[in-house]
Parts: sequence; structure tokens; C-alpha cells
Amino acid sequence: MRLAVIPGDGIGPEVVTEALKVLGEVVPAAEITNYDLGAARWHSTGELLPESVLGELRQHDAILLGAVGDPSVPSGILERGLLLRLRFELDHHVNLRPARLYPGVRGPLADSSEIDMVVVREGTEGPYAGNGGLLRKDTENEIATEVSVNTAFGVRRVVNDAFRRAEERPRKHLTLLHKTNVLEYAGSLWSRIVEEASLEHPDVTVAYSHVDAATIHLVTDPSRFDVVVTDNLFGDIITDLAAAVTGGIGLAASGNLDITRRNPSMFEPVHGSAPDIAGQSLADPTAAVLSVSLLLDHLGQKEAARRIEASVAFDLATRDQSSPGATQSIGDRLAALVSSNVRPVA
Amino acid sequence: MRLAVIPGDGIGPEVVTEALKVLGEVVPAAEITNYDLGAARWHSTGELLPESVLGELRQHDAILLGAVGDPSVPSGILERGLLLRLRFELDHHVNLRPARLYPGVRGPLADSSEIDMVVVREGTEGPYAGNGGLLRKDTENEIATEVSVNTAFGVRRVVNDAFRRAEERPRKHLTLLHKTNVLEYAGSLWSRIVEEASLEHPDVTVAYSHVDAATIHLVTDPSRFDVVVTDNLFGDIITDLAAAVTGGIGLAASGNLDITRRNPSMFEPVHGSAPDIAGQSLADPTAAVLSVSLLLDHLGQKEAARRIEASVAFDLATRDQSSPGATQSIGDRLAALVSSNVRPVA
Ligand SMILES: CC(C)[C@H](C(=O)O)[C@@H](O)C(=O)O
Ligand SMILES: CC(C)[C@H](C(=O)O)[C@@H](O)C(=O)O
Repeated sequence: MRLAVIPGDGIGPEVVTEALKVLGEVVPAAEITNYDLGAARWHSTGELLPESVLGELRQHDAILLGAVGDPSVPSGILERGLLLRLRFELDHHVNLRPARLYPGVRGPLADSSEIDMVVVREGTEGPYAGNGGLLRKDTENEIATEVSVNTAFGVRRVVNDAFRRAEERPRKHLTLLHKTNVLEYAGSLWSRIVEEASLEHPDVTVAYSHVDAATIHLVTDPSRFDVVVTDNLFGDIITDLAAAVTGGIGLAASGNLDITRRNPSMFEPVHGSAPDIAGQSLADPTAAVLSVSLLLDHLGQKEAARRIEASVAFDLATRDQSSPGATQSIGDRLAALVSSNVRPVA
Repeated sequence: MRLAVIPGDGIGPEVVTEALKVLGEVVPAAEITNYDLGAARWHSTGELLPESVLGELRQHDAILLGAVGDPSVPSGILERGLLLRLRFELDHHVNLRPARLYPGVRGPLADSSEIDMVVVREGTEGPYAGNGGLLRKDTENEIATEVSVNTAFGVRRVVNDAFRRAEERPRKHLTLLHKTNVLEYAGSLWSRIVEEASLEHPDVTVAYSHVDAATIHLVTDPSRFDVVVTDNLFGDIITDLAAAVTGGIGLAASGNLDITRRNPSMFEPVHGSAPDIAGQSLADPTAAVLSVSLLLDHLGQKEAARRIEASVAFDLATRDQSSPGATQSIGDRLAALVSSNVRPVA
């Protein structure tokens, strides 16, 4: 397994170290190459993602990313020039974001019913396309436009992926999340493609929710969700909320998948670089470790993936929630659990 | 006071009846005209908002709307053809949505710290502009676009309004909510206008939050918000979540304001027509009653507005939360409280 690692900024390197520690227990022979992309490189060379680096990244089986972002870099530079550029260049059309409330974890909701959902967020188009512009900038008559671009090709491939995932889950339920009553054109395309796909997956029950109503459901009745399929921006919003109600972004993992496997997929914790706590061993590496589990699952190493997830579940059920330990000791615990092949608690 | 009332569909007429009962206690001389817009009219005549009706509506001091929407009408027809058309035709640029956790109300959060925020949602542009289209419909190569249109004129007037509101509140805090790291153009316009306005309001502290992060904050640390200013779509999403964490959309009121007063402003509960519980006296009219409070406040009847809000606060603090009573009896209670000029509990 050839793995490219982008530790990135802030707590990125810290959590990545622990994630690789855990990976080492299941794939000791993994061949790891580090890439120093992020704020530091941009400051010293002005580079965000040189073509040569992009070319090298393509030669790997997968990419593990810590986090990018630093207050010293103007907002948007690293996000668009590095993170989103990777997602777009490597055609990461399925942005996979599971949200599960693990036993023992106390989320912010008073009545924490079971939450076990997975969001299939489109990752290469929609309002993220970068289309738009400014007209008459800095005048009274300035206009800013943002164009959400949605293609049948782009929507269909993620909708199909979402149906396949729904089919493999016990509840076989899929919710399309959109704002079809206002966004008439994109809403129409998404709705029709979900309807078409549902004909080919008669065993999957299909629901629809407006994105605004879905935020209510996520805090009042989150167990209604199983697989959720949605566009890039709604997926961005809803997965942060889903992470929050399942114990916070310290636990939320994600995969940026090219399901055609033409390009390496990229795995990253949903959390950011959290510069305020960087370098103090305060970061929880659990989300990064769960991202490794998603990575292994994607590469077909289902058993190793499950073992890591089970170890995380065990640790979450038994750890002291209010002081889970230093970054390194959480990593040590998880690595030990993985190597001892502990039985899952959930 | 000339008031136009659109009871609408589902529970709309029920909650409007109670809201007018309460209004009657403070403005007995209000001149009320009903307009039968909504699903029934569309079914029988095909009309959504005839020009003649729009003309008549313009002759009023304000509009009270119950709710529109019915499962028998294809999604989007009433929303775009009636509700959004009213907002756009009557230039309702400030969509005002307070979210307050009243004492006695149990929201879905385990740790319900104080929540007292108001969202100033832009109401006449952004992704709601209706710009966009379908190309190569029903082919493999179909493309759907949605254009978010943001003008300096449109953004500035709501940002200025939000600053003025922040200035009048004890905390004098304003949060711009956007997604500037991805939506480069609209984000740039919104950010610059907030920066400019902040120079004229040095006593208001200004924060920025990405919309995705804001959903996390709303469930983990909602008391950080005071006044929030945001675009039409982000405002739509975040106000449903804000309503949910403050006890549900049964309590959430809103005003669609033309702050220039060239057109009548329109007040409506945030909830929909809830056809599943219509006609059973199960709807909570509190949101509609609070909308009347916003209406009176907008028309300068500050004392009457406060009296209604205080009566609602008193009722919420003392009512049986699990069975607050039938629609009519809640309305009776609130009307009695308003007429007895009870002292506010909060
Ligand atoms: C950092 C930002 C560009 C990114 C996004 O909007 O996709 C982040 O919020 C995420 O969800 O991964
Ligand atoms: C019904 C719909 C068009 C409307 C909106 O999106 O604005 C509603 O969700 C609201 O928030 O008032």
C-alpha cells in the first residue's frame, strides 16, 4: 500500500501521527510518503499544490490528510487552492461522511436516540464549482454572483453510490436532502435522478427532506436518517451538524472518494486545523483514526477497517469523556486495542 | 390600522384566528380584510397571486400570513408563486427571525444555556433570485444551474439594518454568517460591506462564522449569538435550526420587512401549514401570536408589542409543556393575559 500523507497545519501533524500509529498495527508494510503542503509551504514558496506534487500524489493508493488552514493565511487561499483543488483534480465526487453516536459518547442533545447515518455529499460540483464573479467591484452597483452547477453525470454517480450504500445497510433507507421548493432547476435534476435510481433499487425506501427542515430533524429526531444524499453545499452544512449531534467534529471522519478508482481517494477528519490548541497534545486523534478506517475500507481491507472502528468504539465506551487523555495517549490506546484484536462493544 | 390577512392552508386559518383574537385585545379598531390565497384558490381558479389582489394588499399597513402549502399542490408552486412572490414584489428585504429560549421551554439541547438571538436574513436576492435553468433536459448531458445574485444595494441595506438592531441590544454583537472560504465572490461582497458598516458602528462587536460551523455552535454554544446577518439561503437554514433549539417552530415568529415602508411588511409564523394536524385544534398558535407582536413593533406600537410578548413569555413559563392545550384555549389564555396587562416574567 502506497500512502501519501499530507499532515498540513495546526493539529494536522499531531493527529496524523496517531492515525499512522494505528495504521501501522494493521498494515505494517504501508509505504508512506509525506507531502508538506499547507500554510508553511505557501508562506515560504507561495506554492499551494504544484503540478509535480499533484502528479506524485496520483501515484499513490490513497491520501491521508490532517488539516489545512492557518489564521496567517487569508481565508479561502488554502481551502480553494489546496483542499478543494485536490478534491476537484482527483475527482473526489463522493464525499462520504458517516455520523454515528457511539455508545458512551454524550452529544449535545438531551434525548440522544440512536444516530447511525452516512451522508453521501457530492464533492465536485454544485455551489463549489467556483463559477461566478464580481461586477462593478467597489461601486454602489456591485453585483456578486455564484453559480451552482449540477450535471446529470455528476449527480447520477453520487446518487447511484448512495443507493448502493443504502442497499448494504440494515434499514435500506435513503433521504434526498435539497431545497427543491426554491432551487427549482437543481432541485428538479436531483429529484428526477433519485426517482430514476429508485426504480433500480426497489428495496430501498426513499424520503425527501428540505435542507432547512433536516436541521430540525437532526436535533429532534436524528434516528430517522440512514443514508442521506445531497449536494456539495448542503452536505457541507448538514455534516457539521451531524458531527455535532454525534459528539463533535473531534470524532467525525470523512472520505473524499473517486469511486471509479482512477485517482487516489483522500481521507481526512472533518475538523479543521484548530490552531488555538495546536502543539499542546490537546487534539483528539479519533477522527483521524476513523478516517484511516474509511481508507482501509475503501481499499478493500474490510476486516482491518472494522477492527479499527471497533477499537474506537471500545475506547469511546470506556474512556473518561471529560478528559480522554493527551493526543499521544489516545493514539497509544487505540493502537494497543487494534493490535490486541479486542472484540467490538457495538 | 388596515391589516390584510392571508390565513392560507392547513393550520394557517386556525392559528391566524387566535392571533387576531390577541390582536383584538390591543388594537380593537384594526380593520381586517381576508384574502383567500393558497391551495384552495389555486385548485379552483389556477390563480396564485392575481395582480389585482397584489394591488389591494399594497393598500394595507401590514399583512398577517398563516401558512401556505398543501400536499395536493406540486412542491414549489405555492412557495414560489405566492409566498416568495409576495416577499419579492413587496420588497421584503429584511427577513427578521428572533430566536429566544423562553423560561420554562425545554428545547432539545441537554445544556440549554440562554439563547436570545435575532437573525436578519436577506429576503429578496441570493440563491432565491430564481435565476438559473436547465440545459439538455432529460438527456445524459443535462445541466442545471442556480445563480445566487448578490448586490451591494441589497446586501448593504440588510447589513445596515442588522447593525442598527445590534446597537439597540444589550450585547451589541453582530455575527456575519456566510461561506466566504468557498463562495469567493458573494463572500467578498458580504465581508466588505460588513467591514464598511462596522466602521460606522464602532460600539458593535463583529464576528464571522462559516455557516457550517454555525450549525455546530447553535447546538453546542448558542449563547454566543446575538444579531446574525446572513444571506437568504443560509438564513433559511439557520433559522430553522435556531427555532428548533429554542423549542421548535411552533414558537418561531418572523417578519418580512420592507424597512423603507414603501410596501406593507408581512408577518408569519416560521412553521408551515402542517396538513397532518390541520382542523384538529392541535396547532400551537404561539408563533402566530408572536408574529403579531413583531407586526405591532414594526408599526411603532412598541408597548402593545411588548405586552403580547410578555404574555407569551408568561404563558410559556406556566403552561403544561407536554399538553399546552387546544389551539383555541391557548389563544384564549394569551388574549386574557394580554387584556389583563400581566407583568412580564422575563
Ligand atoms: C474547509 C472547507 C473548504 C471545507 C468545505 O467546505 O468542504 C470544510 O468545511 C469541509 O467540510 O471539509
Ligand atoms: C416555504 C419556503 C419557500 C420558505 C423559504 O425557503 O424561505 C420557508 O422555508 C421559510 O423559511 O419561510
